[in-house]
Amino acid sequence: MSKKVDVGKKILRANETYALRNSQLLRRGNKKCFNLISSPGSGKTTLLVRTISDLSGAMDFGVIEGDLQTDIDAERIRATKAPAIQINTEGACHLSAAQVHGALEQLPLDDLDLVFIENVGNLVCPSAFELGEDGKIVVLSVAEGDDKPIKYPGIFAKSKVLLVNKIDLLAGDSRVDFDLDRVKTDARKLNKEIAIFPVSAKTGQGMDDWYDWLKTQVRSPQ
Amino acid sequence: MSKKVDVGKKILRANETYALRNSQLLRRGNKKCFNLISSPGSGKTTLLVRTISDLSGAMDFGVIEGDLQTDIDAERIRATKAPAIQINTEGACHLSAAQVHGALEQLPLDDLDLVFIENVGNLVCPSAFELGEDGKIVVLSVAEGDDKPIKYPGIFAKSKVLLVNKIDLLAGDSRVDFDLDRVKTDARKLNKEIAIFPVSAKTGQGMDDWYDWLKTQVRSPQ
Repeated sequence: MSKKVDVGKKILRANETYALRNSQLLRRGNKKCFNLISSPGSGKTTLLVRTISDLSGAMDFGVIEGDLQTDIDAERIRATKAPAIQINTEGACHLSAAQVHGALEQLPLDDLDLVFIENVGNLVCPSAFELGEDGKIVVLSVAEGDDKPIKYPGIFAKSKVLLVNKIDLLAGDSRVDFDLDRVKTDARKLNKEIAIFPVSAKTGQGMDDWYDWLKTQVRSPQ
Repeated sequence: MSKKVDVGKKILRANETYALRNSQLLRRGNKKCFNLISSPGSGKTTLLVRTISDLSGAMDFGVIEGDLQTDIDAERIRATKAPAIQINTEGACHLSAAQVHGALEQLPLDDLDLVFIENVGNLVCPSAFELGEDGKIVVLSVAEGDDKPIKYPGIFAKSKVLLVNKIDLLAGDSRVDFDLDRVKTDARKLNKEIAIFPVSAKTGQGMDDWYDWLKTQVRSPQ
């Protein structure tokens, strides 16, 4: 078992080395970078597509897409004209800082204000791997239920922002049971500083507050 | 890197040893065992609660609950009077066969027909760890989108059953875009034998076909 732990530590140390390189590369160019983490199907790509389109002219984005297989998410981003680099992990459950480093080198960083990393859909493993980002953003779809902060506390404790997505499913004669106040209370118990934005990337509801937050980040000094 | 691979292989070999023990223990008692795998929030626990309640009298179930933290899922199962053992992985992203072995020893196996293992909510990692089960069952909520079989092919390729849950969200003036035929086609491309049941654990829609499948399994010889 000690061998297992040693090797685990070595992998994390190697990851930290690349994370530091990524952070230095981004800071040197005064670029912001956020790492989006969620369960599969929370709507991360739809969120990014709408954000990039709505803020076109105000900010220039690049995207690094992590998926086990396929490049359909990168294709969806490229349809907005933003540059996107697809990483296929071939079964691995998270992005590594080394993979992100390779992707950063392929992006036209000089032309960008902000890089989004869309991690592999997984609420557990990606939270353990620093990528050199300015912060993690956890996305939770209301269809996943309001018990997720207490059941998956790690990622909620580590994130700068919680985007509660698909709130359009709560309107009118809703068939989704979801207590937004419970989620806010439980997330803030884990993380006093977390910014929480209830949004619908589909209808646009609530997105302006998220856009204001992004603008503040891009304006803020390193 | 070779050290990493060697240790990885050792972990998998140790897991296989326990998986074999679990399988032998279950077969000796003529008990069936299915391993439920899905993203967080697909509705696995709700599915189990309804299944256990509706089949009460026809079949006796035990449940092993895997979660990072909390025992709220085991408590929900126990409310049906079925015995449930909670495993907290304390951050680990999947259940191991050794953990399941410990839980099987705590269940009153002699009184049971079938054991459900509800794995940690994660569509990636749990598919790599055999637990000694008779089969894997993948649960996909329609709110996660219809691109999941092509984006997370491993678990769809390995499962005996696909339960497409929350189909009540597709009725009437649905706000959820989900092409059930696409999911069926893509899942069957990966796995010709997979049984697919569209269900709503909330309303009960489609559950009878799933129950018929379970009854066939419990009746079938080892």
